[in-house]
Amino acid sequence: MKQYYHVLGAKQFEKDELERLFDAAREMEGIVARGGDRRHEGRIMTTLFFEASTRTRLSFESAMHRLGGNVIGTENAAQFSSAIKGETLEDTIRIISGYSDIIVMRHTEIGAAKRAAQVATVPVINAGDGAGEHPTQALLDAYTIRKEFGKIDGLKIAMVGDLAYGRTVHSLSYILANYQDVMVYYISPDNVRIPDNVKKYMDEKGIRYAETNDLDSVAGSIDVLYQTRIQKERFPSVEEYEKASGQFIVDADLMSRMNKDAIVLHPLPRAGEITEEVDSDPRAAYFRQAVNGLYIRMALIDKSITESQGK
Amino acid sequence: MKQYYHVLGAKQFEKDELERLFDAAREMEGIVARGGDRRHEGRIMTTLFFEASTRTRLSFESAMHRLGGNVIGTENAAQFSSAIKGETLEDTIRIISGYSDIIVMRHTEIGAAKRAAQVATVPVINAGDGAGEHPTQALLDAYTIRKEFGKIDGLKIAMVGDLAYGRTVHSLSYILANYQDVMVYYISPDNVRIPDNVKKYMDEKGIRYAETNDLDSVAGSIDVLYQTRIQKERFPSVEEYEKASGQFIVDADLMSRMNKDAIVLHPLPRAGEITEEVDSDPRAAYFRQAVNGLYIRMALIDKSITESQGK
Amino acid sequence: MKQYYHVLGAKQFEKDELERLFDAAREMEGIVARGGDRRHEGRIMTTLFFEASTRTRLSFESAMHRLGGNVIGTENAAQFSSAIKGETLEDTIRIISGYSDIIVMRHTEIGAAKRAAQVATVPVINAGDGAGEHPTQALLDAYTIRKEFGKIDGLKIAMVGDLAYGRTVHSLSYILANYQDVMVYYISPDNVRIPDNVKKYMDEKGIRYAETNDLDSVAGSIDVLYQTRIQKERFPSVEEYEKASGQFIVDADLMSRMNKDAIVLHPLPRAGEITEEVDSDPRAAYFRQAVNGLYIRMALIDKSITESQGK
Repeated sequence: MKQYYHVLGAKQFEKDELERLFDAAREMEGIVARGGDRRHEGRIMTTLFFEASTRTRLSFESAMHRLGGNVIGTENAAQFSSAIKGETLEDTIRIISGYSDIIVMRHTEIGAAKRAAQVATVPVINAGDGAGEHPTQALLDAYTIRKEFGKIDGLKIAMVGDLAYGRTVHSLSYILANYQDVMVYYISPDNVRIPDNVKKYMDEKGIRYAETNDLDSVAGSIDVLYQTRIQKERFPSVEEYEKASGQFIVDADLMSRMNKDAIVLHPLPRAGEITEEVDSDPRAAYFRQAVNGLYIRMALIDKSITESQGK
Repeated sequence: MKQYYHVLGAKQFEKDELERLFDAAREMEGIVARGGDRRHEGRIMTTLFFEASTRTRLSFESAMHRLGGNVIGTENAAQFSSAIKGETLEDTIRIISGYSDIIVMRHTEIGAAKRAAQVATVPVINAGDGAGEHPTQALLDAYTIRKEFGKIDGLKIAMVGDLAYGRTVHSLSYILANYQDVMVYYISPDNVRIPDNVKKYMDEKGIRYAETNDLDSVAGSIDVLYQTRIQKERFPSVEEYEKASGQFIVDADLMSRMNKDAIVLHPLPRAGEITEEVDSDPRAAYFRQAVNGLYIRMALIDKSITESQGK
Repeated sequence: MKQYYHVLGAKQFEKDELERLFDAAREMEGIVARGGDRRHEGRIMTTLFFEASTRTRLSFESAMHRLGGNVIGTENAAQFSSAIKGETLEDTIRIISGYSDIIVMRHTEIGAAKRAAQVATVPVINAGDGAGEHPTQALLDAYTIRKEFGKIDGLKIAMVGDLAYGRTVHSLSYILANYQDVMVYYISPDNVRIPDNVKKYMDEKGIRYAETNDLDSVAGSIDVLYQTRIQKERFPSVEEYEKASGQFIVDADLMSRMNKDAIVLHPLPRAGEITEEVDSDPRAAYFRQAVNGLYIRMALIDKSITESQGK
């Protein structure tokens, strides 16, 4: 039976593969600088977004075009007429497999990408499945860290914000668990702390971590501050939300207390949790991080199509 | 005056043309297996869907890309800002003609594709016009039958489900009417029987058919069971819907009473009218049928562009 | 610092540049007639439409494909998930810049395109910013006039309809202000007259104009009748709307009183303000005008990418 190279979750990646992927992404930077290439000319990617995520979709579509390929797709679950008529995800994937060479999928349900991969006859890339995983985001985050520092081993990384529902920090934790002497700080309001299953995974992999709700005390000693959004709807009242989120804002004052070689990351979009005055600080790496998403996705698409050819 | 090769309805096809089309579709299978070709490089297809039909749209767009062409389009009538501002379909088509080399159109009104063709300066393919026709679906259905059996002449074909509102079975009837010694069984609940105008057409063409609401008695003697959805909203109550639709479910039990060389087709999406246990039966041809849509649409796009060139 | 060739408003264009642009558009007509070319193969355009404008979007996308480029995009502000989450336009543009080589943008707010251009690292083309400007429409209008008459100098041009909110007539006025001996008639209901800032601009440029609400008295002496829609919602009651709009309908009767060499333009879509009987009159130039949008947009995209290369 034909095997496909799917990208379903961050746990599937081990260190060797990560390093090869990061090397491939670095190569993609050169390819984009030279105007892209045509290696996947004639290939078709379907972007199947059951929930809108415009920027993630555009990033994948740009990646496919930079490799010479074509894109078909849909962004609106409400428009996906077959689903409305009661079609199962499995039936949809079986049929879409016949129209394209790779499927990039966003869904609202945990595990949807895995279910898709079980019936697909082309590779599937998970672009986010509900509160589950968002592996390509975690890969681009890790790639950014490695690019900025030349390594991941030995770094101190603080993840800040809503650590309970923010799937990005879960996926990133699983990636970081492959590296040596990493120290992770989970910094969040008490009601949105990092889940036990993530901590258990880190324990099993022997990764050091600490939990706190005090960003200030940690800021001076870390290499990477990974900021995320805190969503109002997780809090019982607007007052409690504002009290909680107000403690975790990255502004010029906080930056003044951070190391001169530290960097600030954010999966974006941001609302107010990083103030605009920070943008001009060279340690503000979040826009550089966003562009890295293009290179990582190019590397993943290239690998998925290449290793699954001959269907 | 310039003539265009439009695909507007199933009645426009005669046997010679059907056979040539099926040969062309067969050739397209080889082209897709070899990764597509570039014969329509630089050509542009507009998919103008005034009502969402994601999968039909993706099938056409994949077909155009496999031929090397480009696609622009829209899927949402509610978004079609010009229509909202009161523009006639004719004005829209006149202008869109200037942007592309072929228009694939889905509309909510019977006859819309024909109206479009009257003013278009490029070929128009009807991808469904309300309760009217859906000729490319019927063509892929007939192509599937021909491919599975090596012929259409002499086959016994049962169409099952909502035969009143299901435009697919109307269009397929018109295609089958070109063949010899075909026998068609129309099997439906009493309130959604095949319309008189379809029966009249079959009479004129000398095609034998029978109407019944008893699937079981016919199952053992047919070559093709063409299953369709029955929509709840056609019935006065949920009880009557469930009673009616329950009699027409294709499950393992029904399959056990069918011929060993028979096949089951369905235009998809299915809700519960074919149970999942049937999927692994080699006679379940509906996923093979779905892929055939790609080849037929490639053949139609190719013919439309080629025979209308020089605009 | 890298400079980009943005298209933000009609005032940025002076006569020399307009003439070069019109020459380039004329060249594009030949390229389209020969099936397009591949000069921007591998380049990516993002169409970022925060408000739906299907036809403008399709026109730009067709233009990019005719030049060999690729397109990614979104048409629905309501779907633009980052904006919903509170992202600023500036952040969106910074990131989208990394995915593409040119951004074509439609927005609901005046000045949005200019704000985008301030942070973009690729060229930005304004495809309409609220009640602000729509420069590519004005350029295609002016190109049509020049093509139909061989010149713009010395022509008498009437703009008819809602001149207060119709941004097209503002942008077109700014373009016409570059030419010699032009006479502009602003013909509108009293409650939607041409704004003072437009008249002030025309005064500064020494362009003659007159205001009136009497189309009939002017019809016989003009070269160009530029008709626009009058929107119901500008009027206090349906009665007043119908009374006002009824005076400005272009029908066969009005055409009979116009010069034999005059032309009728309309940015389209039209509702009832030009009757269909006029379509067959050779002086009805509005469908020719619509196709000209393709050539002008090709010329602008080509210029923007070419003059901003090497980012």
